[in-house]
Amino acid sequence: MNMEKISLSHGSGGKMMHALIEDIFFKHFGNDVLKEAGDSACLALGTKNIAFTTDSFVVKPIFFPGGDIGKLAVCGTVNDLAVSGAVPKFISAAFIIEEGFLLSELEVIAASMRKWSDISAVKIVTGDTKVVEKGEADGIFINTAGIGTFENEVRLGISSIKAGDKVIVSGTIGDHGIAVLSKRKGLEFESGIMSDCRPLNRMLHEALGVGGVRFMRDPTRGGLATTLNEIADKAGLGIVINEESIPLSDGVRGACEILGLDPLYIANEGKAVIIAEPSSVKELVLRLRENEYGKEAVVIGEVTKDIQGKVVLRTRLGTRRFIDMLTGEQLPRIC
Amino acid sequence: MNMEKISLSHGSGGKMMHALIEDIFFKHFGNDVLKEAGDSACLALGTKNIAFTTDSFVVKPIFFPGGDIGKLAVCGTVNDLAVSGAVPKFISAAFIIEEGFLLSELEVIAASMRKWSDISAVKIVTGDTKVVEKGEADGIFINTAGIGTFENEVRLGISSIKAGDKVIVSGTIGDHGIAVLSKRKGLEFESGIMSDCRPLNRMLHEALGVGGVRFMRDPTRGGLATTLNEIADKAGLGIVINEESIPLSDGVRGACEILGLDPLYIANEGKAVIIAEPSSVKELVLRLRENEYGKEAVVIGEVTKDIQGKVVLRTRLGTRRFIDMLTGEQLPRIC
Repeated sequence: MNMEKISLSHGSGGKMMHALIEDIFFKHFGNDVLKEAGDSACLALGTKNIAFTTDSFVVKPIFFPGGDIGKLAVCGTVNDLAVSGAVPKFISAAFIIEEGFLLSELEVIAASMRKWSDISAVKIVTGDTKVVEKGEADGIFINTAGIGTFENEVRLGISSIKAGDKVIVSGTIGDHGIAVLSKRKGLEFESGIMSDCRPLNRMLHEALGVGGVRFMRDPTRGGLATTLNEIADKAGLGIVINEESIPLSDGVRGACEILGLDPLYIANEGKAVIIAEPSSVKELVLRLRENEYGKEAVVIGEVTKDIQGKVVLRTRLGTRRFIDMLTGEQLPRIC
Repeated sequence: MNMEKISLSHGSGGKMMHALIEDIFFKHFGNDVLKEAGDSACLALGTKNIAFTTDSFVVKPIFFPGGDIGKLAVCGTVNDLAVSGAVPKFISAAFIIEEGFLLSELEVIAASMRKWSDISAVKIVTGDTKVVEKGEADGIFINTAGIGTFENEVRLGISSIKAGDKVIVSGTIGDHGIAVLSKRKGLEFESGIMSDCRPLNRMLHEALGVGGVRFMRDPTRGGLATTLNEIADKAGLGIVINEESIPLSDGVRGACEILGLDPLYIANEGKAVIIAEPSSVKELVLRLRENEYGKEAVVIGEVTKDIQGKVVLRTRLGTRRFIDMLTGEQLPRIC
């Protein structure tokens, strides 16, 4: 790999991307808010705090089982706001479109964005359209930025995580990545794996109402393993997860075996990792399960002070192995 | 032109882009805030109003006389907030990068973004990086979204424009478009035309302090002619401008003659069109001229009720001709 040039790994969500962010973006843009490095920035505006986030979407193909680039662009930004504890309110929509792109497809994407904005109770309030010549982009790229408001006093943060806290995941992992990859490669799995792309804001708002939530994040690029590593690293604590507790659909399990992929590193677009204090966990899981998007919510592990900055998997066989952050690129253009 | 497909004209800032926005984006996303169609959305957040805007930048080449894609991405969003009457506070930075892009160039761009953020007194608080395979994008595309606050009671709006109001432009027109085009085509004009890319927020904040400003907009894609047509159309009033009053550098004038381009349609990235009540105009122009970015500010025309929705140019020869919105594409990837 030539380190003087951008490689696909720089967009993977894993180690290379974190290095790029540290070495170039933080180095130059650096300020207190940015360096918090949450899914959203928390901004003080007068007496009110708001959350602000942005994501560009380059998923390939743009239509996949369970979603499309428009749904993804809305849900992705809604979820980044929601996991920060904010109520998503407004989003922007900026399009970079390749000359020759079908207007009929653009309309399907726009309709999908409206549908999922309505479901998420956010408004698309501003936008931009750029067109580039044929061959200068691949179909369509969409950026959404989002603003949310903090409606209560709860402040989530990695620094509030303590040893003994439990790790909850809101459902099965790997569905989005495998659904997109299957479609891209023309693979057909009998079980018909669908992306889990969906807005989590209502469910997470209800979960926050239970109390005891320390921190939330959606495990997108780099998957559950990368997200847990980020948390362990920044919290300066360890995380132990139990392989047999991690929810996995039969379809994703089978596809990963065939393709030689580890589901712990596969992107999700409708799941949340929630770190919560032990006394609230039972009620939290019950509340999540009442939601259509959280029926398989489960405790998968806990925070410990023993293995600072590391994540360990307790396997079905009873062995323990370190789970590292994603290195290199597993699946480009997954979101 | 095949109207079933996206053409370069759809990104021109002119008629085709407006049709696309109406026919697809407004149709599907439509809500009161979006349909205001300002450079920024004005959002009520509790007791506070904020401005929210987004723009993607695909300028080619990424380095040009007077700026680079990073400076442009910061200034473009700062200016969209500033012309709405807001004080720019926070911006996001989202990168779509082609595999193989030089890290050294990315670092130059990041440093430029920091420099111009500091000059504009905004913070880059959140971001995103996506990498696509070689050939799937052209170097680097940057999206910035921005948040500004309204610090006083002044509410600018096209609907407040009245017949008799004056039209001010803050300086020479066409510099950005010609600078980028010259660099792209390898043309060398002796006068060394530089982009006018610059942050206007301080100058416009001072202008607002004078009072009497009805509406402001930065004439980017589609140029001065397109911006004035948008204003005339939405205000339901006419605008008459005087050719001999319109500030134009000798370099841009010469380049436009050689290239067969009309400077009225060339993009600017550091100019504002200000519509103001007659009694404030003299002081407004003086205040603008005190600023390093407004030394050539001048009244170029006025609003009239005679030619509703139209823009007329009074030529040097004393004739009058209608100036239409840009049709088709003049200069793709100018910003």
